[in-house]
Amino acid sequence: MVDHTVKAFDSEIGQLRGLVAEMGGLAEVAIRDAILALTNHDEELAKQVVARDARLDALEAEVDRLAVRTIALRAPMADDLRDVIAALKVSGVIERIGDYAKNIAKRVNALDGRSKVEPIALVPAMAEIAEGMVRDVLNAYGSRDAALAVEVIRRDQKLDHFYNTLFRSLLTHMMESPSTITVATQLLFIARNLERIGDHATNVAEMVYYAATGEYCTERDTRTNDTGGLE
Amino acid sequence: MVDHTVKAFDSEIGQLRGLVAEMGGLAEVAIRDAILALTNHDEELAKQVVARDARLDALEAEVDRLAVRTIALRAPMADDLRDVIAALKVSGVIERIGDYAKNIAKRVNALDGRSKVEPIALVPAMAEIAEGMVRDVLNAYGSRDAALAVEVIRRDQKLDHFYNTLFRSLLTHMMESPSTITVATQLLFIARNLERIGDHATNVAEMVYYAATGEYCTERDTRTNDTGGLE
Repeated sequence: MVDHTVKAFDSEIGQLRGLVAEMGGLAEVAIRDAILALTNHDEELAKQVVARDARLDALEAEVDRLAVRTIALRAPMADDLRDVIAALKVSGVIERIGDYAKNIAKRVNALDGRSKVEPIALVPAMAEIAEGMVRDVLNAYGSRDAALAVEVIRRDQKLDHFYNTLFRSLLTHMMESPSTITVATQLLFIARNLERIGDHATNVAEMVYYAATGEYCTERDTRTNDTGGLE
Repeated sequence: MVDHTVKAFDSEIGQLRGLVAEMGGLAEVAIRDAILALTNHDEELAKQVVARDARLDALEAEVDRLAVRTIALRAPMADDLRDVIAALKVSGVIERIGDYAKNIAKRVNALDGRSKVEPIALVPAMAEIAEGMVRDVLNAYGSRDAALAVEVIRRDQKLDHFYNTLFRSLLTHMMESPSTITVATQLLFIARNLERIGDHATNVAEMVYYAATGEYCTERDTRTNDTGGLE
């Protein structure tokens, strides 16, 4: 590439990475606010989380457009092309993470705020792990930090254990007091959404690891839980 | 592009489309076999569905590699580039559809085969709609058929209604006989997985529509259900 093309490419890849970082920030806030809305039974905040998801969709579309234009105009090779494709893929995953947060927020309405079940107390701690994974994997993406990516992949085990505990606890509650079934079912889905957020953060971490090292990360194969939340 | 480059590109885009079609076929079979394993409580078949999912992952990786190589070597422009990016995106969605089928198969083990709940009878019909959507959207993708894509998008409403009915029915069962809670919970997740398969097929249908017409499909906006499966 001639010099001014290189500069244009650098500016475009910088823009792509910026858009992905912005998406990551929005996804983090979405998870946090969805859980806040849940614990405070704040239907207004829940509505905001749902409405704000459109911004994530729009940003993903912007990443797509810019990535395609960059490839078409600059015809980047090797590492540079991988960089563009990575932005395309990572933005797709973050958009999905936003969908899970939106799904959690949508369930706030179905929980009437009075009939609480005890295991709900575990949800914020579980959400914090998921949110931390999203934050750190975006940092790892920004700085191509393979070690941090591996750390995120490992943390997914912790999240899976949390999910399994919560799942069992909710089932026990439902059996002991059938009046909690409606609420507990919503919490089951919420917990499952958080577990899926962790899975997607792990997917991104694996992409970051691959981009940084050129090798596939084998860390995930050693995970004890891959039952799809079956327990 | 010079003539031999055009031919090489045509052969590569043909290969990409072939890989995506193969993935679609595998995803369809995965859904069908997962439901068969569920209704016949066939743990062996369930295991096969789980094991076969690795092939979908491998095919997606192959599509990624070939797409990146095609872009790098042929520097396709405009429509051709959109074609390559579409293959990249569609293969990602099919891989996720395969994951949902795998998740259904994994739950077969947790259902002990004896304690059945009545609403399970609705699952095969629901699965058939989901599977049909996957099949037809892949046909629409193969033939760039915008009308068929719209038809798939419309069918998603039917699937959502099915899901809502099943959801309510399972909740009623759990409340009336708490001994069914464990089984019914698994079925809730299975129904949710089928509903998500429909959502993903709809995503692909929207991409197909866009690729065929250059316009965004507004059909989905008219859907009555977008509650994330709350009811």
